[in-house]
Amino acid sequence: PNDTIEYENYFSRTLLDRKSDKRTDSKWLNTKQNHPATVYILFSNLNPLVTLGGGKDGSQQPEVRLCRLCHKDVKEYMSQTEKVTLIFLGVELQLATLNGGILKEDEEDGLVAWFALSIDATFAEQFKQRHEDCYFLHPPMPALLQLPEKEAGVVAQARSVLAWHNRYQFCPTCGSATKIEEGGYKTTCLKEDCPSLQGVHNTSYPRVDPVVIMQVLHPDGNQCLLGRQKRFPPGMFTCLAGFVEPGETIEDAVRREVEEESGVKIGHVQYVSCQPWPMPSSLMIGCLAVAVSTEIRVDKNEIEDARWFTREQVVDVLIKGNQRSFFVPPSRAIAHQLIKHWIGMNANL
Amino acid sequence: PNDTIEYENYFSRTLLDRKSDKRTDSKWLNTKQNHPATVYILFSNLNPLVTLGGGKDGSQQPEVRLCRLCHKDVKEYMSQTEKVTLIFLGVELQLATLNGGILKEDEEDGLVAWFALSIDATFAEQFKQRHEDCYFLHPPMPALLQLPEKEAGVVAQARSVLAWHNRYQFCPTCGSATKIEEGGYKTTCLKEDCPSLQGVHNTSYPRVDPVVIMQVLHPDGNQCLLGRQKRFPPGMFTCLAGFVEPGETIEDAVRREVEEESGVKIGHVQYVSCQPWPMPSSLMIGCLAVAVSTEIRVDKNEIEDARWFTREQVVDVLIKGNQRSFFVPPSRAIAHQLIKHWIGMNANL
Ligand SMILES: Nc1ncnc2c1ncn2[C@@H]1O[C@H](COP(=O)(O)O)[C@@H](O)[C@H]1O
Ligand SMILES: Nc1ncnc2c1ncn2[C@@H]1O[C@H](COP(=O)(O)O)[C@@H](O)[C@H]1O
Repeated sequence: PNDTIEYENYFSRTLLDRKSDKRTDSKWLNTKQNHPATVYILFSNLNPLVTLGGGKDGSQQPEVRLCRLCHKDVKEYMSQTEKVTLIFLGVELQLATLNGGILKEDEEDGLVAWFALSIDATFAEQFKQRHEDCYFLHPPMPALLQLPEKEAGVVAQARSVLAWHNRYQFCPTCGSATKIEEGGYKTTCLKEDCPSLQGVHNTSYPRVDPVVIMQVLHPDGNQCLLGRQKRFPPGMFTCLAGFVEPGETIEDAVRREVEEESGVKIGHVQYVSCQPWPMPSSLMIGCLAVAVSTEIRVDKNEIEDARWFTREQVVDVLIKGNQRSFFVPPSRAIAHQLIKHWIGMNANL
Repeated sequence: PNDTIEYENYFSRTLLDRKSDKRTDSKWLNTKQNHPATVYILFSNLNPLVTLGGGKDGSQQPEVRLCRLCHKDVKEYMSQTEKVTLIFLGVELQLATLNGGILKEDEEDGLVAWFALSIDATFAEQFKQRHEDCYFLHPPMPALLQLPEKEAGVVAQARSVLAWHNRYQFCPTCGSATKIEEGGYKTTCLKEDCPSLQGVHNTSYPRVDPVVIMQVLHPDGNQCLLGRQKRFPPGMFTCLAGFVEPGETIEDAVRREVEEESGVKIGHVQYVSCQPWPMPSSLMIGCLAVAVSTEIRVDKNEIEDARWFTREQVVDVLIKGNQRSFFVPPSRAIAHQLIKHWIGMNANL
């Protein structure tokens, strides 16, 4: 069939196999929590703890990296369940493939487990004082885009689940308190007769918000539509985007959002690739959309400006790095990838 | 580029333009609520009110149809805001294209608005007694699949938003009561200093749960992997499926779910099409997935059985209607479309 290009997008690579079957295995989780090989990554206020690692010969730019802690670094916080949240992230991929499923239940399986631990502000302050080379990456954007690609995927997973616990501490069905279960992937209402306890309901599971983001092509195939919001840095333009609504397909969401924001009507829509975006837990679904009208009427509530840019203008900015007239998001954002994908495409659709 | 086939899936067609800009226009919404041309569809316990319409000559099978009510039919309930929920669905498409945006603000724009009204059990009982030819479609599945295609899209939208209000009546951030705003598309916490009121948070907006559903191809290209859950009717097999997790791409979710449920490893993944599924508010993302291993190890917690079926077996069931050995979901389910898509494809990938 068609060749869908699967981009290895930032936030999409990961070091880990999620091993979701272990989430209900409290004995295994417990063993791993106390195991010396287990890796902990720390969060405060949804910001990961990082450190600067330089190139070995000292000549390279310092690189931001996750602080990989072990049980002894964090064990004093672990029992303070009121002030910390613990998420099981998975096990290191390579080992999982080598050893997975071969050992018996009670044998040490050799898998290296990863957990995310979120601590409150007081603990975070304490921790920083004791580890002066570490800091909590803040503000999240664009700071998160500095992490090595493989770590970014782990952070995306952890940050999204932690953000969910942050905002969803009470049962939305009855307003009661909840408890966290299954390695952090489930919350259960503590009120005995709450309707959320009868049957399976999404109230118990982390939220993922699908968002469409689209490279809109002019009917002539040689221009694309980019827009900007007021809060963007001056000169930045990017693909239009918006949340998928209930009862809507991806393709219809693309058509609705483009028409709402720019007045441009869309015909054919084609999926290109997707990217998790942990702000706090969106799934950006990247599409190509072919316009069937060209007149732009900007909805000033949603965006500030939208314009057709020629292929030459975009090549100038993206390939030649000439950013005098405008610029687009950095290469680690899916918008950049979508725009680049279009430039790489044949001019005729 | 590639030809992505955009299936007109059940639950994806709609009669309506959502006109989301009108959600914040309370004057317009109010005028439309009282307008005699406005269409109301009624729900009780998330089930739509329907009626049986026969073919004109009396020879055709009776068809299930939405009851399209008007303001006078429902006005007695409208003021009982404790017991009813009102959702603005949009305006009829054809009129929207003819008249949209041409008239002045205070002129009658001629647009036919649709609302969904959910009423409590007592009102529902009252209503049924007065309208003997109407009933609330129940249980939702497979009953919802009997609606005419165009009405199914409207019901998908309404049912998903109503289900959200049903389960999300309290602020998940602080546990307080909330109020409904923006034509039913927003809830706001009533506690003055709730953190959910600072900035924009997904706690205020309807939930859409992305689910991957995949037709898994054997490496030889001539067999596909179908599975069954215990709760399925005997003999039914269908595509594997599962919820997308936070921080995960569509493609990785496909790989994880197939391996978790069946032990089969997946290489290339390709998006095919999607379908809203209002049970209560999933977005089914349909993919083709090419297996790179063939041994099946079923996870009995998730599914009961999974098997490779040959192209001939599937053609027999799907095209020739020979359902002795097994059968697949009805044509209005995306699983059916995915399986059919594969049969229609060239045998060689
Ligand atoms: N958003 C969600 N809504 C319902 N179930 C979920 C959700 N996310 C994960 N799950 C899990 O998926 C299972 C239902 O899967 P299934 O009915 O096979 O699609 C539940 O038992 C949960 O463990
Ligand atoms: N799940 C959601 N999370 C946040 N905002 C949402 C969501 N669904 C719809 N919205 C709306 O989308 C706007 C944010 O859009 P934007 O920041 O342009 O992507 C908000 O102001 C809301 O009106």
